[in-house]
Amino acid sequence: MANSKYEYVKTFEQSTSLLPNTYMIVRIDGRGFHKLSAKYKFEKPNDRHALELMNAAATAVMKELPDITCAYGISDDFILDRSSRLFERRESKILTTVVSTFTSYYVHLWSNFFADKPLSPPMPSFDGRVVLYPSSSNLRDYMSWRQVDCHINNLYNTTFWSLVLKGGMDATQAENRLKGTIASEKNEILFSEFKMNYNNEAEIFKKGSIIYRDYDSTSSVLNRKASAPADYSSEKSELSKTQKEKERKRHVKASIAIEHTDIIRDEFWEHRPWLLSTNLDS
Amino acid sequence: MANSKYEYVKTFEQSTSLLPNTYMIVRIDGRGFHKLSAKYKFEKPNDRHALELMNAAATAVMKELPDITCAYGISDDFILDRSSRLFERRESKILTTVVSTFTSYYVHLWSNFFADKPLSPPMPSFDGRVVLYPSSSNLRDYMSWRQVDCHINNLYNTTFWSLVLKGGMDATQAENRLKGTIASEKNEILFSEFKMNYNNEAEIFKKGSIIYRDYDSTSSVLNRKASAPADYSSEKSELSKTQKEKERKRHVKASIAIEHTDIIRDEFWEHRPWLLSTNLDS
Amino acid sequence: MANSKYEYVKTFEQSTSLLPNTYMIVRIDGRGFHKLSAKYKFEKPNDRHALELMNAAATAVMKELPDITCAYGISDDFILDRSSRLFERRESKILTTVVSTFTSYYVHLWSNFFADKPLSPPMPSFDGRVVLYPSSSNLRDYMSWRQVDCHINNLYNTTFWSLVLKGGMDATQAENRLKGTIASEKNEILFSEFKMNYNNEAEIFKKGSIIYRDYDSTSSVLNRKASAPADYSSEKSELSKTQKEKERKRHVKASIAIEHTDIIRDEFWEHRPWLLSTNLDS
Amino acid sequence: MANSKYEYVKTFEQSTSLLPNTYMIVRIDGRGFHKLSAKYKFEKPNDRHALELMNAAATAVMKELPDITCAYGISDDFILDRSSRLFERRESKILTTVVSTFTSYYVHLWSNFFADKPLSPPMPSFDGRVVLYPSSSNLRDYMSWRQVDCHINNLYNTTFWSLVLKGGMDATQAENRLKGTIASEKNEILFSEFKMNYNNEAEIFKKGSIIYRDYDSTSSVLNRKASAPADYSSEKSELSKTQKEKERKRHVKASIAIEHTDIIRDEFWEHRPWLLSTNLDS
Repeated sequence: MANSKYEYVKTFEQSTSLLPNTYMIVRIDGRGFHKLSAKYKFEKPNDRHALELMNAAATAVMKELPDITCAYGISDDFILDRSSRLFERRESKILTTVVSTFTSYYVHLWSNFFADKPLSPPMPSFDGRVVLYPSSSNLRDYMSWRQVDCHINNLYNTTFWSLVLKGGMDATQAENRLKGTIASEKNEILFSEFKMNYNNEAEIFKKGSIIYRDYDSTSSVLNRKASAPADYSSEKSELSKTQKEKERKRHVKASIAIEHTDIIRDEFWEHRPWLLSTNLDS
Repeated sequence: MANSKYEYVKTFEQSTSLLPNTYMIVRIDGRGFHKLSAKYKFEKPNDRHALELMNAAATAVMKELPDITCAYGISDDFILDRSSRLFERRESKILTTVVSTFTSYYVHLWSNFFADKPLSPPMPSFDGRVVLYPSSSNLRDYMSWRQVDCHINNLYNTTFWSLVLKGGMDATQAENRLKGTIASEKNEILFSEFKMNYNNEAEIFKKGSIIYRDYDSTSSVLNRKASAPADYSSEKSELSKTQKEKERKRHVKASIAIEHTDIIRDEFWEHRPWLLSTNLDS
Repeated sequence: MANSKYEYVKTFEQSTSLLPNTYMIVRIDGRGFHKLSAKYKFEKPNDRHALELMNAAATAVMKELPDITCAYGISDDFILDRSSRLFERRESKILTTVVSTFTSYYVHLWSNFFADKPLSPPMPSFDGRVVLYPSSSNLRDYMSWRQVDCHINNLYNTTFWSLVLKGGMDATQAENRLKGTIASEKNEILFSEFKMNYNNEAEIFKKGSIIYRDYDSTSSVLNRKASAPADYSSEKSELSKTQKEKERKRHVKASIAIEHTDIIRDEFWEHRPWLLSTNLDS
Repeated sequence: MANSKYEYVKTFEQSTSLLPNTYMIVRIDGRGFHKLSAKYKFEKPNDRHALELMNAAATAVMKELPDITCAYGISDDFILDRSSRLFERRESKILTTVVSTFTSYYVHLWSNFFADKPLSPPMPSFDGRVVLYPSSSNLRDYMSWRQVDCHINNLYNTTFWSLVLKGGMDATQAENRLKGTIASEKNEILFSEFKMNYNNEAEIFKKGSIIYRDYDSTSSVLNRKASAPADYSSEKSELSKTQKEKERKRHVKASIAIEHTDIIRDEFWEHRPWLLSTNLDS
């Protein structure tokens, strides 16, 4: 039974390869997580176990895919260096591999964080998309945008749930109370009505989580240049296979760090120069 | 803290929407499943539990996503009708939702099929891609291609593993023995050397699994036309919201059937006309 | 001087190939043609020479590109059969070739129609885009949409310019007069105020121009099937090279007809079955 | 006659917008220019009139589209700055506008360069495609690649046509003679057999033509920073409308220079910093 008669259908497949020398961000969103957080009674405004599960799943993804330099949660974003040639930069393959691996670990690790709340259908799932950024400053701005968003949402949610859980308001009343308020007013509500100093809230809530591949600092001082991912420039594209394999191993071996810190200011990036590929270009 | 300064990064997002009035196939592949089947000692040439797990996960995906009319395994392919407007036909959203939901159930249901083999990292994961087919005959040819492929692979694998497991060959010897053989020769090897009649092998191995939304047969005879998904034609696009909701519910309520049968010949499709949308067009 | 050092830049090229088995429409628009028609004092509401120039350029494009089955003006749209494999269906190549060839003839033929108005910079130019339609009924609906649009615009323009040129109104007055009027009211204005029966207007203005490859009608009755372009189905894809060459020659030899007729009703298409590829599929 | 029934066809249109903050190159190729150069008896190996016509058409394109910073011929490439927002960066619109405008001027200006050889069908036409480069060094490498290619081709053609026109060889003999020769060997053939010093050949043949927008050098020294196109960074995106309009006018007023010079080394670019947008990013 020959298959040639039907094989023409293969020609209908269309593949997008992501523009070289651009940072690739895979952004993941939980599907229907409002319902999910109700079903499993996540704590409000933040459920630390749920956040830690996200981080654990993200860390596992980074262990399996060494081309990912860092990830930022809550939303979650995975950043692949602009020099990465993972799966020949095929969009569908990169996107689905990250989303599927994340999902797999999220389900697998669930019981580590919610031992008393077993999963049942409908199961958690995630959608995702890829966004490209051509320059390091675009990437930095993207990360800043995410962290500002995290802050804005968290301040709102903290105040909202204080009004509801401690202030006895219903959702509509709380919404109305917050409508049009600026940050300082929300801080003031928390302080004067609930004796909360927002600054003392946990950093994981206020700053989110930056998860990154951490290299031995001694070696990274000595080999800062070597630590940076290979560039798409003419010279470096001639990296020998041995060098590439060596570099891959270095990525695999690197420990993975989680911090809840400011990623808007330069400091974080200046101390971890390998997170932004060195490119002599402007 | 205003976010406007960074919000320009949103403009870098690019979204592909899939051409209307084309069948959308989401094709999923297990990543590194050779290693996985070794790790968990899947039976050779076919592990019935592994296949049933795939089918169970696919069935769960179809329950959650009523726009999927049918799926075919082993490979696995999910078919969305050409009339579907799921997620406004955004490629990334459709693709990642199917892949993530499948992954989620695969991991969740694993223990139902392999109670004695708990999952451990590296976890199973899947990649996927979308392929579009403009006409029903293209879709039929695609399905035929998959089933012929299933047959060719299964006959090869059945013979190969007979030579190895019962014939005492090593992999290289078995490969060499099979090099260049046609179907009838493989059948003959099975019969004369191993007393196996390939025709008696289980249908799930020889034919794969077609999983489809099954409508009550009485109603579907009476309402065959109504059973077909709404078309992208002018008239039908005016389906009222009520009608659309009704249709969605009908999809949700439909039972999901699994068969291991011939999907190359017309018979299967003629008896389930709702699987190919009626389009008066040629 | 080796070039290898820079050749990596070739990998940045990304090519889109248009989905097989879909009708490809290249739609062209004049850039800044309001200014152009003022500069060269085109007659209002319609300049017959300008329309005939468009048609002459379109006819020349069809002579050079035999894969185009028909074109419709005024807008202008070029239709390539869904079976066409022109330039391996590379979008940029198809799009730019049609636009550039059209532009080239438009400029070259200009003096045949406007002998007394030589072209001068800024020169006429056109932009374009490709739209795909999976089924013949989608294509028919597209063509109907264009012709209805032609009618609506022409009735409006005819009435508007009558009010201005014969009725002494300025543009704003005419616009206000027509705001909210339906077709019958415009007809009535033309008839009662300007003694014009819209039905007697030239067909080229009311219906636009359909330009198509015309085959010898005797042969096309006998060989209706042969007249249809090769399909993307399994059998026909095995057309021998000789057959393909024969078919190409047949397209080249076919005369090109221009008509100003109804393309919304079935009649036009039923009498020229080769314009819609026969596809047994639904 | 309402059009709503058919308007659904508009939803089939798919538009690609080019990734922000990337250099956009529109690359144009003459279609069938081997035949064309034979038909109009272009001089071999280079026809100065034909090259000057290309440059004149390219210059006209740059006058009409102020977002183009420079162009390089022979091939021809038009570079739009990465900050450009022309046509909201819609690929089809940018691509076809450049190709059509170029074609229009090529045909229009033909008689200025070939007064004695009037154009006749089949008319010259061009195809084109867009390639994106994320960084200035990628862009520089692309330009270098083109100029090295120009050199390699021109040295080959010069030697080939010397062997044919002066050495009495036929095409096959000349090809065989050159097979496997390196640059120095071709130089030696030219020198020893035809008394030609390749270095003395015209720069337009050896280096091609770089056409760029030239700003008043005094102002550009004083306002080097202002001369650079606006960046896609957060601050600069807040350019007021007035500033944008001012900048547009500055582009329009700039004279357009043509040079035949080295664009591989830094010098050319260092003296015209506005051709590479300043981006503080690495």
